[in-house]
Amino acid sequence: MTLENISTNKSFGGWHKQYTHFSKTVQCNMRFAIFLPPQASANHKVPVLYWLSGLTCTDENFMQKAGAQRMAAELGIAIVAPDTSPRGEGVPDDENAAYDFGLGAGFYLNATEAPFDKHYRMYDYIVSELPALIEETFPVTQKRAISGHSMGGHGALTIGLKNADRYSSISAFSPICNPTQTPWGQKAFKGYLGDDRDAWNEYDACELLKRASTDLSILVDQGLSDDFLEKELKPERLEAAAEKHQTDLTVRMHEGYDHSYYFISSFIEDHLKFHAKYLT
Amino acid sequence: MTLENISTNKSFGGWHKQYTHFSKTVQCNMRFAIFLPPQASANHKVPVLYWLSGLTCTDENFMQKAGAQRMAAELGIAIVAPDTSPRGEGVPDDENAAYDFGLGAGFYLNATEAPFDKHYRMYDYIVSELPALIEETFPVTQKRAISGHSMGGHGALTIGLKNADRYSSISAFSPICNPTQTPWGQKAFKGYLGDDRDAWNEYDACELLKRASTDLSILVDQGLSDDFLEKELKPERLEAAAEKHQTDLTVRMHEGYDHSYYFISSFIEDHLKFHAKYLT
Repeated sequence: MTLENISTNKSFGGWHKQYTHFSKTVQCNMRFAIFLPPQASANHKVPVLYWLSGLTCTDENFMQKAGAQRMAAELGIAIVAPDTSPRGEGVPDDENAAYDFGLGAGFYLNATEAPFDKHYRMYDYIVSELPALIEETFPVTQKRAISGHSMGGHGALTIGLKNADRYSSISAFSPICNPTQTPWGQKAFKGYLGDDRDAWNEYDACELLKRASTDLSILVDQGLSDDFLEKELKPERLEAAAEKHQTDLTVRMHEGYDHSYYFISSFIEDHLKFHAKYLT
Repeated sequence: MTLENISTNKSFGGWHKQYTHFSKTVQCNMRFAIFLPPQASANHKVPVLYWLSGLTCTDENFMQKAGAQRMAAELGIAIVAPDTSPRGEGVPDDENAAYDFGLGAGFYLNATEAPFDKHYRMYDYIVSELPALIEETFPVTQKRAISGHSMGGHGALTIGLKNADRYSSISAFSPICNPTQTPWGQKAFKGYLGDDRDAWNEYDACELLKRASTDLSILVDQGLSDDFLEKELKPERLEAAAEKHQTDLTVRMHEGYDHSYYFISSFIEDHLKFHAKYLT
């Protein structure tokens, strides 16, 4: 695999870098960003937090707006932020170029419906191809945590729950908790997966929590002034599903906070410290 | 004056808000952002750091990317980020819509050349109209500090030096220190001020420091991997000019850092703590 470095910025004594590479999994060029803390070197490998972004985002939103590098540098944790969908010529989009399907809206699943099934394989990309590439290229260990926001919170929860052997902890901001029952999720799952509800359930955090226990600790932060809370996010259903198997889930509701990066930046330090307990 | 609130986000226990208002000074609608820390209330007024952004920026770049709210909330300091130029229909731009003159490039001066002299009066807007509006509207004191980046670093230095009675301290990231002698500054000053070199010198931090002493403390951070360092910024000339009157100027050069917000966010905590010494 050939990686092309397209930007480098020193940040909190470490380095923020963007790369592009051709992904066999999603069959197009993909861009990602990595923050390497100052501790990272050939002689001192560091663990990695994977951050999955929400609808419309790229690798840049989290790296520019979350303010995560300060604490990641202090704790010695690398952060990898992939894009939110395949992109480029030949990658099909929503028929109306809507923000909630197609480009920028891969939903971290493997599509089975044409014409999306060729490129929209973000689940395999995040679970397998990207970590393999990161771990062969950069001074990182195979200790991984996963987090994300909104659609990316859905991605972090479902990928973490389905791969408990590959991650040491899971967190999310404002995740889409029950996408089989809410509009963004239903539109995406119908488009990418067709009408097979069993296939939908494979990518629904509540369904996954209902049917199996997990040893992983999960931290979720949710703003109470989030415009999407009632219609799209449904954290109360995640809590209900987690009760069944005594999952170690903490959901924190925050008065006044919304769906923006102003919310994420206010609590990202807590998430980094949470993951550090299990990563290091 | 009528203020219109156009966005509100809770952030680190405080509030980020954007407003628009018609400015008599620059004769158009202007947008600004304010961060009010959790301590701010009618019974507890807080001091204000004014942040002046660089070329192409609006009020949003600093608020979204600098990560300043965490420490501002801890220290109890409000932050006000104005736009970088007048905007809107009827506001003239660079004849080629270049990024370094006209819209997004007001250079924090009062233009005297037509057609720019009607709207491009950012100096008066920042020094007088905006603080008056802030202080009559929000729970803030009249204690003010000023900082900025690149063109905004030039703005902070020149406005602070010319109004030492109105500010308690000055800082800058990667400022344009000697604009009368460097390309961005020369283009802007010729366009806004014409050929009168005495008028140019009124907006050049090195010239201001050479001819008068100041009691204000000044902190400047500069990255050594900044692509604009040699041609446009010239911090060594600021240091030389400051020597003449034993100005309390600290210039810190940082290996590996560039001109981006990855640099600013890495050191913004130091600037907030620096200003807090004089503001509180």
